[in-house]
Amino acid sequence: MDAKRVKHILDGVKDGTIPVDEALEELARLPFTDIGLAVVDHHRSLRTGFPEVVLGEGKTATQIAAIVTELRRGRGNVLVTRVAPALADAVRAAVPDMEHRLEARALVLKQAEVARMGHGPIAIVTAGTSDIGVAEEAALVAELAGNEVVRMFDVGVAGIHRLFHRLDDLRRASVIVVAAGMEGALASVVGGLVSCPVIAVPTSVGYGASFGGVAALLGMLSTCAAGVTVVNIDNGFGAGYAAALMNRVGRAHGAK
Amino acid sequence: MDAKRVKHILDGVKDGTIPVDEALEELARLPFTDIGLAVVDHHRSLRTGFPEVVLGEGKTATQIAAIVTELRRGRGNVLVTRVAPALADAVRAAVPDMEHRLEARALVLKQAEVARMGHGPIAIVTAGTSDIGVAEEAALVAELAGNEVVRMFDVGVAGIHRLFHRLDDLRRASVIVVAAGMEGALASVVGGLVSCPVIAVPTSVGYGASFGGVAALLGMLSTCAAGVTVVNIDNGFGAGYAAALMNRVGRAHGAK
Amino acid sequence: MDAKRVKHILDGVKDGTIPVDEALEELARLPFTDIGLAVVDHHRSLRTGFPEVVLGEGKTATQIAAIVTELRRGRGNVLVTRVAPALADAVRAAVPDMEHRLEARALVLKQAEVARMGHGPIAIVTAGTSDIGVAEEAALVAELAGNEVVRMFDVGVAGIHRLFHRLDDLRRASVIVVAAGMEGALASVVGGLVSCPVIAVPTSVGYGASFGGVAALLGMLSTCAAGVTVVNIDNGFGAGYAAALMNRVGRAHGAK
Amino acid sequence: MDAKRVKHILDGVKDGTIPVDEALEELARLPFTDIGLAVVDHHRSLRTGFPEVVLGEGKTATQIAAIVTELRRGRGNVLVTRVAPALADAVRAAVPDMEHRLEARALVLKQAEVARMGHGPIAIVTAGTSDIGVAEEAALVAELAGNEVVRMFDVGVAGIHRLFHRLDDLRRASVIVVAAGMEGALASVVGGLVSCPVIAVPTSVGYGASFGGVAALLGMLSTCAAGVTVVNIDNGFGAGYAAALMNRVGRAHGAK
Amino acid sequence: MDAKRVKHILDGVKDGTIPVDEALEELARLPFTDIGLAVVDHHRSLRTGFPEVVLGEGKTATQIAAIVTELRRGRGNVLVTRVAPALADAVRAAVPDMEHRLEARALVLKQAEVARMGHGPIAIVTAGTSDIGVAEEAALVAELAGNEVVRMFDVGVAGIHRLFHRLDDLRRASVIVVAAGMEGALASVVGGLVSCPVIAVPTSVGYGASFGGVAALLGMLSTCAAGVTVVNIDNGFGAGYAAALMNRVGRAHGAK
Amino acid sequence: MDAKRVKHILDGVKDGTIPVDEALEELARLPFTDIGLAVVDHHRSLRTGFPEVVLGEGKTATQIAAIVTELRRGRGNVLVTRVAPALADAVRAAVPDMEHRLEARALVLKQAEVARMGHGPIAIVTAGTSDIGVAEEAALVAELAGNEVVRMFDVGVAGIHRLFHRLDDLRRASVIVVAAGMEGALASVVGGLVSCPVIAVPTSVGYGASFGGVAALLGMLSTCAAGVTVVNIDNGFGAGYAAALMNRVGRAHGAK
Amino acid sequence: MDAKRVKHILDGVKDGTIPVDEALEELARLPFTDIGLAVVDHHRSLRTGFPEVVLGEGKTATQIAAIVTELRRGRGNVLVTRVAPALADAVRAAVPDMEHRLEARALVLKQAEVARMGHGPIAIVTAGTSDIGVAEEAALVAELAGNEVVRMFDVGVAGIHRLFHRLDDLRRASVIVVAAGMEGALASVVGGLVSCPVIAVPTSVGYGASFGGVAALLGMLSTCAAGVTVVNIDNGFGAGYAAALMNRVGRAHGAK
Amino acid sequence: MDAKRVKHILDGVKDGTIPVDEALEELARLPFTDIGLAVVDHHRSLRTGFPEVVLGEGKTATQIAAIVTELRRGRGNVLVTRVAPALADAVRAAVPDMEHRLEARALVLKQAEVARMGHGPIAIVTAGTSDIGVAEEAALVAELAGNEVVRMFDVGVAGIHRLFHRLDDLRRASVIVVAAGMEGALASVVGGLVSCPVIAVPTSVGYGASFGGVAALLGMLSTCAAGVTVVNIDNGFGAGYAAALMNRVGRAHGAK
Repeated sequence: MDAKRVKHILDGVKDGTIPVDEALEELARLPFTDIGLAVVDHHRSLRTGFPEVVLGEGKTATQIAAIVTELRRGRGNVLVTRVAPALADAVRAAVPDMEHRLEARALVLKQAEVARMGHGPIAIVTAGTSDIGVAEEAALVAELAGNEVVRMFDVGVAGIHRLFHRLDDLRRASVIVVAAGMEGALASVVGGLVSCPVIAVPTSVGYGASFGGVAALLGMLSTCAAGVTVVNIDNGFGAGYAAALMNRVGRAHGAK
Repeated sequence: MDAKRVKHILDGVKDGTIPVDEALEELARLPFTDIGLAVVDHHRSLRTGFPEVVLGEGKTATQIAAIVTELRRGRGNVLVTRVAPALADAVRAAVPDMEHRLEARALVLKQAEVARMGHGPIAIVTAGTSDIGVAEEAALVAELAGNEVVRMFDVGVAGIHRLFHRLDDLRRASVIVVAAGMEGALASVVGGLVSCPVIAVPTSVGYGASFGGVAALLGMLSTCAAGVTVVNIDNGFGAGYAAALMNRVGRAHGAK
Repeated sequence: MDAKRVKHILDGVKDGTIPVDEALEELARLPFTDIGLAVVDHHRSLRTGFPEVVLGEGKTATQIAAIVTELRRGRGNVLVTRVAPALADAVRAAVPDMEHRLEARALVLKQAEVARMGHGPIAIVTAGTSDIGVAEEAALVAELAGNEVVRMFDVGVAGIHRLFHRLDDLRRASVIVVAAGMEGALASVVGGLVSCPVIAVPTSVGYGASFGGVAALLGMLSTCAAGVTVVNIDNGFGAGYAAALMNRVGRAHGAK
Repeated sequence: MDAKRVKHILDGVKDGTIPVDEALEELARLPFTDIGLAVVDHHRSLRTGFPEVVLGEGKTATQIAAIVTELRRGRGNVLVTRVAPALADAVRAAVPDMEHRLEARALVLKQAEVARMGHGPIAIVTAGTSDIGVAEEAALVAELAGNEVVRMFDVGVAGIHRLFHRLDDLRRASVIVVAAGMEGALASVVGGLVSCPVIAVPTSVGYGASFGGVAALLGMLSTCAAGVTVVNIDNGFGAGYAAALMNRVGRAHGAK
Repeated sequence: MDAKRVKHILDGVKDGTIPVDEALEELARLPFTDIGLAVVDHHRSLRTGFPEVVLGEGKTATQIAAIVTELRRGRGNVLVTRVAPALADAVRAAVPDMEHRLEARALVLKQAEVARMGHGPIAIVTAGTSDIGVAEEAALVAELAGNEVVRMFDVGVAGIHRLFHRLDDLRRASVIVVAAGMEGALASVVGGLVSCPVIAVPTSVGYGASFGGVAALLGMLSTCAAGVTVVNIDNGFGAGYAAALMNRVGRAHGAK
Repeated sequence: MDAKRVKHILDGVKDGTIPVDEALEELARLPFTDIGLAVVDHHRSLRTGFPEVVLGEGKTATQIAAIVTELRRGRGNVLVTRVAPALADAVRAAVPDMEHRLEARALVLKQAEVARMGHGPIAIVTAGTSDIGVAEEAALVAELAGNEVVRMFDVGVAGIHRLFHRLDDLRRASVIVVAAGMEGALASVVGGLVSCPVIAVPTSVGYGASFGGVAALLGMLSTCAAGVTVVNIDNGFGAGYAAALMNRVGRAHGAK
Repeated sequence: MDAKRVKHILDGVKDGTIPVDEALEELARLPFTDIGLAVVDHHRSLRTGFPEVVLGEGKTATQIAAIVTELRRGRGNVLVTRVAPALADAVRAAVPDMEHRLEARALVLKQAEVARMGHGPIAIVTAGTSDIGVAEEAALVAELAGNEVVRMFDVGVAGIHRLFHRLDDLRRASVIVVAAGMEGALASVVGGLVSCPVIAVPTSVGYGASFGGVAALLGMLSTCAAGVTVVNIDNGFGAGYAAALMNRVGRAHGAK
Repeated sequence: MDAKRVKHILDGVKDGTIPVDEALEELARLPFTDIGLAVVDHHRSLRTGFPEVVLGEGKTATQIAAIVTELRRGRGNVLVTRVAPALADAVRAAVPDMEHRLEARALVLKQAEVARMGHGPIAIVTAGTSDIGVAEEAALVAELAGNEVVRMFDVGVAGIHRLFHRLDDLRRASVIVVAAGMEGALASVVGGLVSCPVIAVPTSVGYGASFGGVAALLGMLSTCAAGVTVVNIDNGFGAGYAAALMNRVGRAHGAK
């Protein structure tokens, strides 16, 4: 997987410093730990300087605590996403030094300083007040990955002057995340106003024919504005993560 | 159904001028003609001053010609909608004095002058060039029902300054029809800018996750802008007809 | 956005009474207040004489109370929609002078008299008893926007004589709202009987293949009756609001 | 499968007139013929006096001709449904004595007189002109199964007086088939007016949110009128067949 | 609506025994009572000898009690369907002489003897144990409408010999109701084995790709067996009601 | 159904040792017991050596206990699937010797030793930690049917080296079950790496556009890897059962 | 990927017979050829003795011919699936020694004898005549992979005795493929009758609510019969391929 | 819209060099041209250095030619996407100097040199041969926007070694576009292997449960790999455009 490492092993085999069997085993071993219920992977974090991330939803507090305990050994920051309040409390009973970010539905274990890595600010925009939870999840990931974040909440298209009021901030951003439910039109409008990548996050805000975010999702995928890409419904994490990657394109970021 | 008429019949019965059996029969008779394959209804047109309308799609040229021939006896105008070019030619072979409105996919038999009936102009707006066919169908119906129509085409949200350029025209309208495919965001933006009823027509323009107009339809139904109502995908006729009704609210328009 | 205002500012700049920088700032400022979690917009209410409206669903009591507190400064009436009983209680703990309209799932802050603005009565019709909540939401909005409302409940098509019993009331209306779940056929039947705009509201009443209002929604969109437009499932607010706009077409209603 | 027949075989075995092996074989044999590409089944027709029916769609002319040739040996009538005009011509080239019923998209091989079997007339009703093809398919099956059929076409709910005009005919029927596309509301209205079974056939007439008959299908399944059952979209054959079965409930109809 | 009654009124008008105004009013009056929240309809029950039926779901106990109280004045039996246990208790607190049929989720007010009206027995068949609730609802309606009911539960196609075990009972039935979830194949198998009408009721039993009964619904609509008609998911009431109507085809059942 | 048995009965009839009526009855009787609410079938277990299986979901504790009590008389093992914890407790109150397998959501009554029957090991693989419940259900069935099971959990494609780490185990398997939610890509990747049958189980893990397992289901059905077949969402039982059948192909397994 | 090969390379490196750089390159090289528009993979065929397979749909004749020309160098058999007649002709113009299997919509290049590899026969069953094309595709793959195939066509559940007629053949099979459209019930019935793996192939045969095979697909996934797994709609190839893999479980089949 | 320009106008007004009315008019004027059927917008191209882009689908050759003729006046490059061969010929009859890029379904008018603007190469990867058309559309846009493009075609997950063969190229890329149909798993696998932004393009390649790209779309949205964003089905243009924007993040790219 890692060409340099393979070369090193092969050199060792050639030199006789690494026996063949050990080399074979080494080739299969990569920086992860199998703790039974999960294969804890230090790989990506080492590679990217991003926090380790655990999807909390669908896991028990015991499972989360076990995984976090393993991950903290990597000395990086650890982020647990989609954690309902009761689950957060249960995890913190086991790992008390995690911080609960209620609005973002997340737990954070801060072990390391975060260096600024992005080119410019990432703007995180919502159509309404109810989209703020998703937006804060995106903001948290982006900040933990070393980005300046600018928030613009409740600037949906039904009162479009609210958006224009923030046009300067929008145009200063390197990357923009737009979280919107209902018809999700804000992503298209923003996409038409700027020249940077726009990441659209449909939210499950709305009722009836919104179908839990499907209307916004389809609208964002069908957008008439070029330069807009889309993540899953309510996937603030994915939007923030992708925004952080986009904001580092062209920058040295350690060995891949 | 018509209280005055029933009263007249009953009076006749009371006076003995109308025998009971004839009265019974009369009560069942309303102003339509059964021509076998269709029950041709002069009712609504008499009631509203609107043209008689025939949905062309799904009918043969022979059927359409037969119905139009019956309808023309009512001396009003007749509109056949959703007529593909070949079908239009076949119908006109039988009813040569119908005019073919190609862009609106319609045939018109003009027998009567159309009086101005609406309060103010009806604005018909499209997001793109490909939505024009649907918009022209709406415009045709609205004009035949006695309305001034103002067209604004290709002013979609990806370049929102094109819409603002026409803001005055928008705000002068009594009723606005917005035809848009893809994500259909234009309806929400227009709805947020004006204080009159907005009728949103999703069009089947787009591909992939547009699902033949479904993305626009769901978006328009989920709109965050109040005052927007929606008609079926590509239903320019329905939008124009409803706009005409809305533009006559509060005006005397003959016996209902 | 507002041509007269822009002209005034420009005149001021020309006269030297408004410095350029101030003008620039003024142009960006519109009548709303950014309270952090929401951008509270006095704009539409000023423009239309309608109540200020807040969508309660998806917001916390704290958020709603903050927004209402800001909105009340505009001295108009304030309506909070889609408020479950427990949420209503929590909001009223903070804003005790709001009235709870249980059936309509709404909170109302009445600060101003409502002037009659519509041409004629708005009829609000339901197919069944279970549709009444949605209908009352529509009625509340229409009344707060200055309309006379006539209610006709439980007159669905399975016993169509119940509808004909109210035919006179139907035909006297300027605009009709039809709320129906299940197959939603009532909207088509009403649409065929009258000559005014009909707004169809599909409700989530029904089970199985009703799919939470989808059957009624599709049926209403596919209606064979011209003049019917549709709003989102259970969107009583939207129907009432649109009905009020339609009922004012052609009437002076202040500067737009 | 057939208790009497099994008893007869067992009796034969007991009497020694049927050897055990032959009995075993006999038990497996039922009145059908395997012609390779199809297992031609004389069973149901023998049992019911209905015509033999072949679904034409998805079969080649050669396949249909082979099956019809086998079926005609049963000396009953044979009906091939869903046959496009070109396919009909190709089949008739091979089986020239089949009659082409164009409107019903069917081929009929008439070999036997049809006896009247139903209690009363079967009414077949359509909402519009475009539903007539489906209705004629239903009518054809019902007639071949020995029923009087009464047709009422183009009496949809947008002009409901057209339906009331035929109320007497409706109420005289033993069973009613309603074919309707678009929103399919006619089935509910008819269901509410009569006291006999109503079979609703959604048709693919309509566009956009009709989704090829889905809107009508969901509406008919969600109907508020009791006593309505539903068949597949455009399934005129199924409706006519079921109507014929219903119209014979309680009548002796030979050995089952 | 009722030709004889209209004739009577007209005769009265002619004779002078009924004044015109009174006649007009009479024509509009049909046997129902408007109790505000519902229009209680004695019409169908009078016409058919069926019980009065109230859909419990979506109504409050207060609403149900009010409607039942009105309906009981008609002296027929009253059936309330889809009543969850807690709701049933609340209704019975107000109307203590209603019987709670737990398995069928129904309340029954028995005021009149039920006369036998059907031709032969109605068989009610389920694929599994979990479908029994829906089947019992169908059975209850059929019994209250004067039919003998034969139950065959848990005879699904995965062990098809269980069904064949009951073949005689199946073939003796006049009408068959099949309730099945999951893939719903039982309806097709039964349809292929009998010569009477089969009413298929998809149930919401199953998980995953069953989609709450949709798989069974689509399968039943697409059935390869002729003579099968379908009602809504879990609609035991509708199936039992339709079965009762079918079982009376050809029998005198009073004035329609 | 069972040719040998039928032959035996017929021979008996021929010999006169079995009277005709008794033979008829015998032919209808197969090894099951009708306990009213369920037809308990000892048939398949006798035939296959698999445990008796009861789907717990949708049944009450009383129903399950009654069925298990009947099934235990067959002296084989009994498995109850999809049992929520509270239901499990309630059943065990009545049948205390059942073992609760919490992770697999199952109850087991172990009455017999399980003989090894499969060719080689069955590998059960999950993409993530949250898929383990479904995987354990599959493992439990496979083990009760006499197979060696190898577990590989949390080896999803986002860190594909975790899967390659277990490549040897994968390739040693006779049959592989892959349980994955979200996009379900693991099934395709595994299918491309091995030469044995792969059974894909989509799980309901994921959110938004995962639609409760639909994304994984469609992906697995559309897989570009040959040799992959699919079972229902979350259907661990079905996957384990099918894997066990596949692992016995070509082995003698008693009379069918 | 191939542990033995990696070990061999490492040994060579250790021995000095393979330079490090060459080893690195070798590790990346696997038995495939990049011909620009496709990466032609000899890998699976070498591994399994199956034919090389090319999905014809979506490729041009030129592309297919180029890929086949590359693949024939592997000296195995080559199968091109989903080839419409015109495309087949165009490919054969370039590769004239391919055989066109019209019914299976396939092209075959036979270069090698096929050895018998399966345990027992594979039964391929269809519900109707229109499912035969899909069945023949499955049969072709199974035969090219060394299996005896038994065909049973047109034995759907509407006349279930046709299936029982073939019960012996069904029960003799090692693996069964069931191809059925419409409601797809045949898969459940077969699954309940046998003790071997059943692969269900939904076909797009049917109309209306069959939704191009979706009804059959959902039904097969929701089947109440254990041991049934499912492949994509119309995927005869996938079913035949999986059946061949299942029929070799436990047999030595060369190095994987 | 453009603060500097507004300031300039205001300064002119202040100075008296620009009359108020002219200023008002100027404010409304932005760099576009209304040619009736379209509002041709030079805005974005001026702003970004990207080509002007016209969506060809849904437009006539006449419309396209008119728009291109207007756009060429801007002296930039012009790209027309989604142009079927016949449409391309018709457009080129009017605008002969456009180049037809058949594989990408595009027309290009090259008027200007393209300067290199991206940080590093953009990799464009496909799962199969049939995805190449979509990939070439993406490549064309990316190249016209000044990027180096690296192509890797037919490296889908069913033979994952083909992908690993190109791992170095993958990891050298600044941004990666993955075009895949069927289950679309390639996007997740690539996303897990790299540390740069990945844009997933679902293609409509596949059949049955692929639903024209929906399976791939849902899978890509539900991906377990962070850093993946998604565009519409078959939207090669959108993917290439977004990739180009991402590849310029942090680079000066003229006035926005």
